[in-house]
Amino acid sequence: MLPFSRVTVIGLGLIGSSVARAIRASLPTVRVTGHDADPAVRARSRDLGFAHDITDQAGTAVLDADLVLLCVPVGAIGAAAADIAADLPADAIVSDVGGSKVSVAAALRAALPHAIIVPGHPVAGTENSGPDAGFATLFAGRWCILTPDADTPPVATARVRAFWESLGAQVEEMTAHHHDLVLAVTSHVPHLIAYSIVGTASDLEQVTESEVIKYSAGGFRDFTRIAASDPTMWRDVFLNNREAVLEILQRLTEDVTMLQRAIRWGDGDTLFDLFSRTRAIRRGILEQGQDDPRADFGRAH
Amino acid sequence: MLPFSRVTVIGLGLIGSSVARAIRASLPTVRVTGHDADPAVRARSRDLGFAHDITDQAGTAVLDADLVLLCVPVGAIGAAAADIAADLPADAIVSDVGGSKVSVAAALRAALPHAIIVPGHPVAGTENSGPDAGFATLFAGRWCILTPDADTPPVATARVRAFWESLGAQVEEMTAHHHDLVLAVTSHVPHLIAYSIVGTASDLEQVTESEVIKYSAGGFRDFTRIAASDPTMWRDVFLNNREAVLEILQRLTEDVTMLQRAIRWGDGDTLFDLFSRTRAIRRGILEQGQDDPRADFGRAH
Repeated sequence: MLPFSRVTVIGLGLIGSSVARAIRASLPTVRVTGHDADPAVRARSRDLGFAHDITDQAGTAVLDADLVLLCVPVGAIGAAAADIAADLPADAIVSDVGGSKVSVAAALRAALPHAIIVPGHPVAGTENSGPDAGFATLFAGRWCILTPDADTPPVATARVRAFWESLGAQVEEMTAHHHDLVLAVTSHVPHLIAYSIVGTASDLEQVTESEVIKYSAGGFRDFTRIAASDPTMWRDVFLNNREAVLEILQRLTEDVTMLQRAIRWGDGDTLFDLFSRTRAIRRGILEQGQDDPRADFGRAH
Repeated sequence: MLPFSRVTVIGLGLIGSSVARAIRASLPTVRVTGHDADPAVRARSRDLGFAHDITDQAGTAVLDADLVLLCVPVGAIGAAAADIAADLPADAIVSDVGGSKVSVAAALRAALPHAIIVPGHPVAGTENSGPDAGFATLFAGRWCILTPDADTPPVATARVRAFWESLGAQVEEMTAHHHDLVLAVTSHVPHLIAYSIVGTASDLEQVTESEVIKYSAGGFRDFTRIAASDPTMWRDVFLNNREAVLEILQRLTEDVTMLQRAIRWGDGDTLFDLFSRTRAIRRGILEQGQDDPRADFGRAH
């Protein structure tokens, strides 16, 4: 059974355009309508042809939708929801793909007080942005987290779950608060550290940017991929998941300070113990199919 | 012209076995002799067949060598050099592949006071270890840094340069001190942070290890690859490049603290400015062929 027949995607960047492409690939009878606030993105999306229709107005896009998926940066989600409020069918389900969920749930509820809302977050992406960056298999084998609350009808959650599963994702439910803590660990703080380390490297007086680039294969280049992710999206994530990010960052800082002390005092055992322990998590990730098992992510050598 | 005719590789892990394989592939007339302190690694290396001969004693391996390449963790380099001291031909060149160069130069000079020494460091690797992990193209397009000092005959440096170039690497020369600072930025601190973040994540009470693994595609999994690197090698790097690592770590800590403050105070402009600036370095790395240009490192999706 089709979970939805007419899906509207608002925001046609990496994630939104990937959702549209995935629907076309996996649910070919579903009608896909798209809208983006940026006229250039709308024009490009029409050329790429991943939606049946791209509307100039957000309201027009949702008129007959049974699922509306908001794929905009989390700081813009309240405004995007307000833009569709007047035209949203009463029985349409509104969901999203935002990386923070407590703030998104509040913004959606404020803008759409009577709508059926199932906040969601597919944990997938690449460093590229925009409608050209999307692809149909982005969600295959990845996890999508739904954070229904007391106001969410279980049947609506079940339909959104079925939708993501039909795109190849695995689905888990948890509270918005727990989501924000989990993602602070697995995504937000790693991104912050990656951005930071690339910034630190480019600001050094003693080492040139050209040297940083030439010798980046020693490990640094891995961080530069993440640090090339969309600046607006990530600014919004940090401003909207402040508490959890600061909590995890504080933990990380303590742990780094401990390693700093071990290096200063020549305490090789502390270093060796940690460096041995961290291999187990990598094994778990590979065993569960959450990374490419080839050496060096399968990079060309 | 062949830079060397008889190369001996001491230490047959990822790097040593890759050097041996690269010589066989690119310099098929060169005789390759290998030795490893671990009998199991010697046995496995004989099975893999990447050297013409694997000797049980280090001294035997170097008897007729014109290049001896020490491919052991930097903490073991003094002992490895001492093991070959009695048998080393007077005109043989000794080099290495260690990730710290000030300490290595001192250890080599102390163990081999009269030898011709050209310290080196090919900036290449994967997260895998041992003789099975090596491959012939590991150094293709990567940079190899040589750190000759006042005692190094320029002709010896030129031969080692030609050797690495024949394996497909690009070669740069700099002082050992500058090398250690550059690598602290481009390799050592990124590894320390990756190990640390994986350790922090696995120690949290509120988020289970299973959750960390499931949702790792949000960015965390990138760090786990680096944090799966060889613990002995990396312990030794940190103990042997203490000052430069602590200096760069201090800079990074200041920068992270600044971001932490920006998040706490809701200063989106500071975040956005940094997140925009860091994209330029990624572009430089891709333009100079130092990373795979495909999205997400070319990971399978």
